Amino acid sequence: MADELIQLTASDAASLIRQRKLSPLELVDACITQIEAANPNLNAVITTCFERARQEAAAMVISNDEALRPLAGVPVLIKDNQLTEGVATTLGSAIYRDRIPDADAGIVKRLRNAGAIVLGKTNIPEFSIGANTTNPLFGTTCNPFNTNLTCGGSSGGSAVAVAANMAPLASGSDHGGSLRIPASYCGVVGYRASPGVVPNEERTTPSTHYSLQGPITRSVEDVSLMLSVIAERNLGGSRDPMAFPLDASQFRKLEEVDLGSLRVAVSTDLGGLLVSQANQQAFTKRVEQFSRLFKRCDWHDISLADAPAVDWLLRQDVFVTQYFDQASDWPTDMNPNVLATYNTALKTPMADIAAARRQQLELINRCQALFTEYDLLITPGMSVPPFPHEQLYPEIIDGKPVENYMGWLGLTASLTVVGHPVIMVPAGLDEGGLPFGLQIVGPMYADHRLLSAAHHIEQAFQQVDLLRRPMCEAAHT
Amino acid sequence: MADELIQLTASDAASLIRQRKLSPLELVDACITQIEAANPNLNAVITTCFERARQEAAAMVISNDEALRPLAGVPVLIKDNQLTEGVATTLGSAIYRDRIPDADAGIVKRLRNAGAIVLGKTNIPEFSIGANTTNPLFGTTCNPFNTNLTCGGSSGGSAVAVAANMAPLASGSDHGGSLRIPASYCGVVGYRASPGVVPNEERTTPSTHYSLQGPITRSVEDVSLMLSVIAERNLGGSRDPMAFPLDASQFRKLEEVDLGSLRVAVSTDLGGLLVSQANQQAFTKRVEQFSRLFKRCDWHDISLADAPAVDWLLRQDVFVTQYFDQASDWPTDMNPNVLATYNTALKTPMADIAAARRQQLELINRCQALFTEYDLLITPGMSVPPFPHEQLYPEIIDGKPVENYMGWLGLTASLTVVGHPVIMVPAGLDEGGLPFGLQIVGPMYADHRLLSAAHHIEQAFQQVDLLRRPMCEAAHT
Repeated sequence: MADELIQLTASDAASLIRQRKLSPLELVDACITQIEAANPNLNAVITTCFERARQEAAAMVISNDEALRPLAGVPVLIKDNQLTEGVATTLGSAIYRDRIPDADAGIVKRLRNAGAIVLGKTNIPEFSIGANTTNPLFGTTCNPFNTNLTCGGSSGGSAVAVAANMAPLASGSDHGGSLRIPASYCGVVGYRASPGVVPNEERTTPSTHYSLQGPITRSVEDVSLMLSVIAERNLGGSRDPMAFPLDASQFRKLEEVDLGSLRVAVSTDLGGLLVSQANQQAFTKRVEQFSRLFKRCDWHDISLADAPAVDWLLRQDVFVTQYFDQASDWPTDMNPNVLATYNTALKTPMADIAAARRQQLELINRCQALFTEYDLLITPGMSVPPFPHEQLYPEIIDGKPVENYMGWLGLTASLTVVGHPVIMVPAGLDEGGLPFGLQIVGPMYADHRLLSAAHHIEQAFQQVDLLRRPMCEAAHT
Repeated sequence: MADELIQLTASDAASLIRQRKLSPLELVDACITQIEAANPNLNAVITTCFERARQEAAAMVISNDEALRPLAGVPVLIKDNQLTEGVATTLGSAIYRDRIPDADAGIVKRLRNAGAIVLGKTNIPEFSIGANTTNPLFGTTCNPFNTNLTCGGSSGGSAVAVAANMAPLASGSDHGGSLRIPASYCGVVGYRASPGVVPNEERTTPSTHYSLQGPITRSVEDVSLMLSVIAERNLGGSRDPMAFPLDASQFRKLEEVDLGSLRVAVSTDLGGLLVSQANQQAFTKRVEQFSRLFKRCDWHDISLADAPAVDWLLRQDVFVTQYFDQASDWPTDMNPNVLATYNTALKTPMADIAAARRQQLELINRCQALFTEYDLLITPGMSVPPFPHEQLYPEIIDGKPVENYMGWLGLTASLTVVGHPVIMVPAGLDEGGLPFGLQIVGPMYADHRLLSAAHHIEQAFQQVDLLRRPMCEAAHT
């Protein structure tokens, strides 16, 4: 029974709660039990607020009013770079070891306002930079399919917790792939929406594709449900200037999509990004399986090969805005990825950043041009399978050196540069028995359409052995 | 009769054309006659395409289909920093003296697609930088109320042409006030929409409050009509990444607004910006007149005093992105305003730009906080009355030195920094008999509501001598 409860999607759980077939406290207790059972081996959840969660669940009256709150009684975990009232928010850094915020971040406010119950915080690399979830304060989060391997990052704790059924929903954020990378490595779903869809009231850069917040879940339907809450406008005082007018509730109702009418472009390496032979082959095998679902499925020669260089420069620009007032106080043993980006930035001429922005516009145009002919673009999620978590990042791929901590993340980072909405969906296990994810990309701002299509694709994938969402040992109590 | 035709607003002209009470050619000819009569003294229109305009007007069939095109047969002038197919586009610079583009800019494409007929191009300062419309290529555009004085800028030619009835509509663009400043000095209406409302397919910075395009007209209703066209999405190939989903046709139908229900905040100097005693007094006199229109009209202590310094840094950042690949070829006699900004930028550390962005967010929050209590914010349009056009900018205001070409433009530039939508509406003549404009500001992205309120305010202003839109001599043939 507990096993059944923790496997529920948020959509199903919310529905059962509304019908009073399940109480919030039962569900919260089942998730807490699972965290207590699975977390010691995985280290996904690093701070808990179980007492408060139980109180909130016990106090929740499922009245007619309550029934209108879309996440009433649904447990959620929060990435530790998002402020939580009364619950430590450390950024995975000793610098913030003792910080207990007195207010929730906007995204947390909206989740709790919708009835979600926060169980705790999930682990990240220090300052959430890098795609291996490890930091000196809390240690390493392990891949639930093989605890010797990395779970990816930076929203690693969130993806592992959701994969291991510790909660149906977790929040994340995404610079160069931080929602998508760990989703790919853990067999769950991560969504990077179009910029401005999810308000970020704590932003430090007025307008950027970086630091974008979003959901990690076990189904596309749950992504949509969570998005319908975290994309809400106008709760509380300060507003995100990027949050253009949008009816977030639209995401609660996905549209019918006839997959047989869709024109799909596929690319293994987006025109020459570093992708291992193993992952290229795994992707090709999957394309053979799913191509028949669509009206057309064409190998496309779109090139975003310049995007990683552009990402590296834009990232520097954002880092300076984010950290210029604190970097001088950083300890020398700070996350080397953060230091590498920040220190490079201080020496970069403004004209280089300028050139990167102009190139970014060219890349955006190139991507938009593809969508005049195609409805979706599908690529592999990652360039390599999960690797031992002792490595900060893979330094060599098929004999080719990886330049820096972003050098193996071109597939995800290049899509940050162009800003198109992209969902990472699980597509079975690779040759090594580890989760393999696919990125499904849509036209700019067509988030609702993309999610609707992805929901139907996910359902079709469940019928195919090679594409079915994989289950890990840790998901069972 | 010709005098009546050239005085028509675009809305009235479009309506008469749809009813076949007026032919496009009659109207085009009347405007051409007025340009030929009034322009020699004013120098607003610097390139014409009369032959093509007449051909287009003559060929236009006002069928039922045609009637659906919102600007069918309406003459329009285009600011000379917007590309026009087959018509010279010089940026007011010898560098582009001979440039004849082979395609229209997005904004021009949308206007022509809606049936508008382009009569020619309007003068700007070189590269459209600075608020006095003068350049070595075409000389100086004069204020239609006193040809010894500046008309403002940078969309000076557009504002003068519309004030002098050369066309009912003209396009403009706005860095630190370029749509609003000349509107204020010429007694017409200029509108700076929320960022992303008007797509700019030619942008060089992926996301910014600068280089925003918009309408200059003789009425708020015409602003709304023109906006309903230039804010359209998805015409042609490349898309502006800032252009969030929006139904532009909404602007063709303004809503009823009961002015007596509105809470209005007023400020003479936005917390200490440099504004002359003369203009402070002129504003106060007007507040005494219009305050009775509203439910409340309160002097507010909002401070955007830091905004000009932030603007100066953000402006540098945008300039580098815009010009880094051409600045080395600039002649030394290039517009000194452009050189001043660009050369300063190359020496500015990234951390200073970073600090400016963080301060920008604080200013945005401050402005948003005001709109939790008020519906509108009203300020004077300009800090000083129009001055002799031989001066590039006023170097001293009431004994206080003006630091640079932006130092006297705090009222408009500070609103660029916060990005709130703002309309410049005429409010009579000042003590010197020159047009005095008011900035009416609304909450971010609430453009439709702001225009609806401004439309009703404009109507109420027509009943009051001191606030009525002023007419210039040049407006009569």
